[in-house]
Amino acid sequence: MFDLLLSHIQNKVDLPEEQSNQIQTFFTYKKLRKKQYLLQEGEICKCLSFVSKGLLKSYTSDEKGNEHINMFAFEGWWTSDFNSFINQEKAVLNIDAVEETEVLMITLDDYERLMLEIPVMDRYFRILYQNSLVTKDYRLMVSNSFTAEEKYMQFALRNPEIIKKVPHNLIASYLGLAPETVSRIRKKWSLNT
Amino acid sequence: MFDLLLSHIQNKVDLPEEQSNQIQTFFTYKKLRKKQYLLQEGEICKCLSFVSKGLLKSYTSDEKGNEHINMFAFEGWWTSDFNSFINQEKAVLNIDAVEETEVLMITLDDYERLMLEIPVMDRYFRILYQNSLVTKDYRLMVSNSFTAEEKYMQFALRNPEIIKKVPHNLIASYLGLAPETVSRIRKKWSLNT
Repeated sequence: MFDLLLSHIQNKVDLPEEQSNQIQTFFTYKKLRKKQYLLQEGEICKCLSFVSKGLLKSYTSDEKGNEHINMFAFEGWWTSDFNSFINQEKAVLNIDAVEETEVLMITLDDYERLMLEIPVMDRYFRILYQNSLVTKDYRLMVSNSFTAEEKYMQFALRNPEIIKKVPHNLIASYLGLAPETVSRIRKKWSLNT
Repeated sequence: MFDLLLSHIQNKVDLPEEQSNQIQTFFTYKKLRKKQYLLQEGEICKCLSFVSKGLLKSYTSDEKGNEHINMFAFEGWWTSDFNSFINQEKAVLNIDAVEETEVLMITLDDYERLMLEIPVMDRYFRILYQNSLVTKDYRLMVSNSFTAEEKYMQFALRNPEIIKKVPHNLIASYLGLAPETVSRIRKKWSLNT
């Protein structure tokens, strides 16, 4: 259950064996059915969650009930409404399971205590957040300056496994494109539908 | 010269006296005239820079030569083209001085060495990046779901010192608004021009 989390940490920092065991005590395991909420808009996001199996999506809903995808969280990814988690304010995001999913959850208190007790975890999260900032900057740039076709093709080239696994309408929503636009681009480039 | 940087670090983490002295050896001081570039699009962003005095802005330029403000960096803020710095790829941002400015610069090698030699700096940057992610999420949400008036008034309420100090056309660019829109909103709310 903890293998993926521990290997994810060990890929970024040196983690002694005894600390591997200690880390596990900070997390709670939860299994979600397909479509089950991990977080609903308006709640306080109590935990930062690591996806050990499955796939989550986070999104906002508009007045018409349309979902606008904020991000996907695959196996080995972290997810939360980060502002809600860090500042314990009301969440603006919903997070639910695209398929049956398993998560390892840590509360804010335990997250702070984890880094005080195992300081190398500061390094782990520093590297994680550093990468996340680079990705967000790239996404903001793409969103401001790329055409629909450039957006989709850049995304497809950088995330071949997501393109295979995630329904096209969700990817369209993530990229802020109409589903018909994505169909047209896929047809033009002869991508299997 | 290092007082602001050291107090910024000490506000977030416990830093023993001898490490305060050691940290200073990792940085290079640079003074910029008004309008002088710290970084130009297409260069590799060699350093992460801490503003010890003055004000920088980072921006992209479109084909017509219009500047689109990415962010401001005030005294006590860090700035860079972060992807260019971390991955040593070509910068997409320009960074220049809005007024006479002094920066403390650290190269990528020294940044990595700093955290290996003074591990509490991992904690400092973890907290810094954590706050930055929260801010970026908020900015993305504002950009996607607020009206022009909401954008400006939210920004003005959260950043009164920026509103006072930065020319209105730069703030308009940062918020993705036309300068005339900002003038109209300021007039409506009877803000001094």
